Order: sequence, then C-alpha cells, then structure tokens
Amino acid sequence: MIIVKIGGSEGTGHEAICADLARHIQSGRRIIVVHGGSHDTNVLSEALGHPPRFVTSVSGHTSRYTDRRTMEIFMMAVAGKMNTLIVENLQRLGVNALGLSGIDGRLLQAKRKDAIRIIEDGKKKMLRDDYTGKIEQVNTELLRALLEAGYTPVIAPIALADTGDAVNCDGDRAAAMIAGALDAETYVNFTNVPGLLKDIDDPNSLIREIPRGQLEKFEAYAQGRMKKKIMGAQEALDGGVKEIRLASGKAENPLANALAGECTVIG
Amino acid sequence: MIIVKIGGSEGTGHEAICADLARHIQSGRRIIVVHGGSHDTNVLSEALGHPPRFVTSVSGHTSRYTDRRTMEIFMMAVAGKMNTLIVENLQRLGVNALGLSGIDGRLLQAKRKDAIRIIEDGKKKMLRDDYTGKIEQVNTELLRALLEAGYTPVIAPIALADTGDAVNCDGDRAAAMIAGALDAETYVNFTNVPGLLKDIDDPNSLIREIPRGQLEKFEAYAQGRMKKKIMGAQEALDGGVKEIRLASGKAENPLANALAGECTVIG
Repeated sequence: MIIVKIGGSEGTGHEAICADLARHIQSGRRIIVVHGGSHDTNVLSEALGHPPRFVTSVSGHTSRYTDRRTMEIFMMAVAGKMNTLIVENLQRLGVNALGLSGIDGRLLQAKRKDAIRIIEDGKKKMLRDDYTGKIEQVNTELLRALLEAGYTPVIAPIALADTGDAVNCDGDRAAAMIAGALDAETYVNFTNVPGLLKDIDDPNSLIREIPRGQLEKFEAYAQGRMKKKIMGAQEALDGGVKEIRLASGKAENPLANALAGECTVIG
Repeated sequence: MIIVKIGGSEGTGHEAICADLARHIQSGRRIIVVHGGSHDTNVLSEALGHPPRFVTSVSGHTSRYTDRRTMEIFMMAVAGKMNTLIVENLQRLGVNALGLSGIDGRLLQAKRKDAIRIIEDGKKKMLRDDYTGKIEQVNTELLRALLEAGYTPVIAPIALADTGDAVNCDGDRAAAMIAGALDAETYVNFTNVPGLLKDIDDPNSLIREIPRGQLEKFEAYAQGRMKKKIMGAQEALDGGVKEIRLASGKAENPLANALAGECTVIG
C-alpha cells in the first residue's frame, strides 16, 4: 500500500499526479491520497476579506492561525474545492475515488491545541481560540473497508478534535499518521522540489538516501515547508512505515519517478 | 430506513434537526441525510463577485445557472461548508456521521443537461455550458455498507455526470432518488413551512394527507421551491418509497413532529 501526499501549494499540478496515480491503481496498486490546500485557502481568505495570518511558535514552526471563520474557509477551500476536484479528476480517469475529511466517520481524531505559544515582534505571547489539532488516532477499519471494496480514499486534512470541533491539521503529518497506522510500505510526499536539497537553490544537490535513524542529522537542510515534511517522515518511521520518499510532483510521471528513486528516500 | 432532506435556505436551523436525528439514530433508527445549500451558495457567489443567476426553463421551473465557476463555488459552499458543518454537528451529538457528495464512490450518477431551453425577457433561448444533471443511478451498495458498519451518511447534492464532470443536482430530487433506490419506508423532506398549504399565507391551511395517485390534483397548490418537492415526492413514489412527509424543519423536535403526522403525508 502506498500513501501519497499531494501538496496544496500553487502549481503542484495535480492533473499529472492523478494521471500517474490512475495508471498505478489500474495496474493493481492500493493507494490512499492525502492532500493539502494552503494556496486555495489563502486565495479564498483574501477574497472573503479575512486574510490569512501565519504565526511562529516558540519552537520555530510556522503555521496558519485558524480562528473559527478561518476554519470555515479551510473547510470550503480544502474539503469543498480541492478534495472534490481531485476526486473528479480521478473519476474521469476511471478510478473510483471517494473523498473524505478526517471528521467523516471519525477518520482522524485529534487533540485540539486551542492555545499556542508564539513569538510576535520578538515577544512571547499566548494565542487562543486556534482550531488546530494533533492527530492521535486513525480509523484504519474504515480505510481498509473502502480499499477492500475497490474505492480509492482521498483525504482532506481536517480532524475531529476531542472537544467535538473540526480542526485544521497539517497534511504532511496527517499522511504520515495514516501511513504509520496502516503499516504502509511507502509514503510518497510530493513537493515542488526534487526532494531534500543540500542547497535549496541547487536542484543538483539532492540528498538521495537518508538511512533510518540518521534523519536528525539532515534536519538542518530543511527550510520552510520541508521542516514539516521531515517531521512527518520521522512520525511515519516511528509509526512503522518502511520508507518515505520526498519527491517532485512536477516530474513527468511523478509517482513512477519517485518509485524509481529520483527523490530523497528515507528509511 | 428514513431518508431526511435538510433544506439549504436561510434559517432552516439544522441544529434542532440534528439533535432530533441524533435521538432517533441512538434509539436504533437508520437514517440517511441529504442536504441543500442554496443560501450559502448565494452568499459565497456574491462575496466572490460571481453573483447567482437563476433561469426559468420553458416548462416553468426555476433553477440556478451553473457555469464552471459557479460549480466550484457550489462545491465549496455545499460539499465544503454545509456538509462539514452538519457532520461536525452530528459528531458532537455522538452520531458517527460520514459526509459524501455524489461524485464520491460514484454515489450519484447523472446525465448532464449542458444545454437548457429557457425563457428570458419573454423570449426562448438555449443556454449552454450548464453543469447540472439528472440523477440516473444511486450506488446503494456503498450506502448499505456504510449503514451496516454504523455510519450515518450525509450527502451533498453533487452528482458525477456521464461526461465525467461534477454537476449540481437538485437536493430534493436527489433525496427522492436515494429513497427510491433503497426502498426506504419514509422520506421526510424538511422545509420552512408546515407542509403543502392550500393558501401559502395561512399556516392553518395545511393539507394533511394526499393519497398515492392523487398527487397531480394537488400540484396547483405548490409555489416556488415546493414545486420541486412535489416533483421529488412523485419520483420517490415511483421509485417504491412507501410515504413522503413534507414537514417543518423549524418545529420543536422536527423529526418526531413529522413522524407524528404534523405535516403533509403523501402515499
């Protein structure tokens, strides 16, 4: 089984990815798709006069501040638009895709982090009323039943929190948790670069292999979004996934390309 | 089994409906929820600078003209927001709800009507590039499997067309097709009036019973949205549903109220 994460950034081109996924599914591979939607969420937030706000936690991670209004915008952009467009795309290619968010059937259960410690203008602050969460449980029974019946699950990164609220959860880490919970052979995380680069400005500086247990040594090379992909990779390894592939979603036949080793293989 | 249609108009108050659905589900009833989303779609369309356009067909029915941009707005408002909020609401009440649109798992397959004959300014016109469809097939196997596994399906009125496109389909008629395909005992269609009224301005003029086969005689009383509800009722009867209840979604305990006969019962 392969868990595939499709990015939510502008221009990750899910048409080419979907076409290659369809070829693999039709030749018998079992695939679960997890996606993001950050770009669409930003565009919709701006259009609706509620611009996105990004905050930096005291541990140095950047994330979207998700108040209730932002959470509703996130539902629309991610569960409404991106999920439906990917399912429509796969259905056109003959794949019986089925879209879910993590609140459907309690697919992804999370612990809500309603207060986060951030750094703003050099000062530490507590930020409250945040609708984000950390996934603690995956309904593997539901996913296995859908795969068994011939459906390809397509999952939007929304989780059901212990407080009963729908919360925004990180797509890279959601995919990692799902991969771990299902003991997937491979977790392919598509990005807009060829993998983890030693020098972010040099695509030829691709790190091709990172042995399990040495991921920490390579963390320093991760910039921006790549930090969460590395964090997700560690969580996937801890969860029992055999290998994680950080690969380009822009390559021709992106899944074949990743499986052929044109990426960073961790594990 | 009961199929419940929740309206998409402003103020149909799905919190009270969800609370009553939860009570019935927890006492052992099997329920499938179908919803609309017209109000949210209108609001989002206006906010995004693509105002809704309603057209009148030559046969006298009013419907939303759905170009591709409107279809994406419909996905966001209906599959993204309304579906997710209903699922969140039911999950909070302890019901294991699972949201789907009709393109998921080919749940609702439709024939696309890409050209419609309309009347505008007194003239007949052909309107093209419409993303609407008439449902022809329901994936009952998927719904039965979900119910069997303890999930409560919550369905957004989007269908997968023969052309491969996601299309807008009428929620009242989608619920009717689902009720018919599953041979449901009861199809309860919530509205913001107590049922079919002889005089739309007099809530005391409720028509309490319409015997199967006599629905046509009562069609003249239906105004506006009620026309599609009557059309859906006829389709549900034709599909094998035992009874259709047109009931107020604003009543206290709306499902109990409808099942107790405080509504229009057809069948």
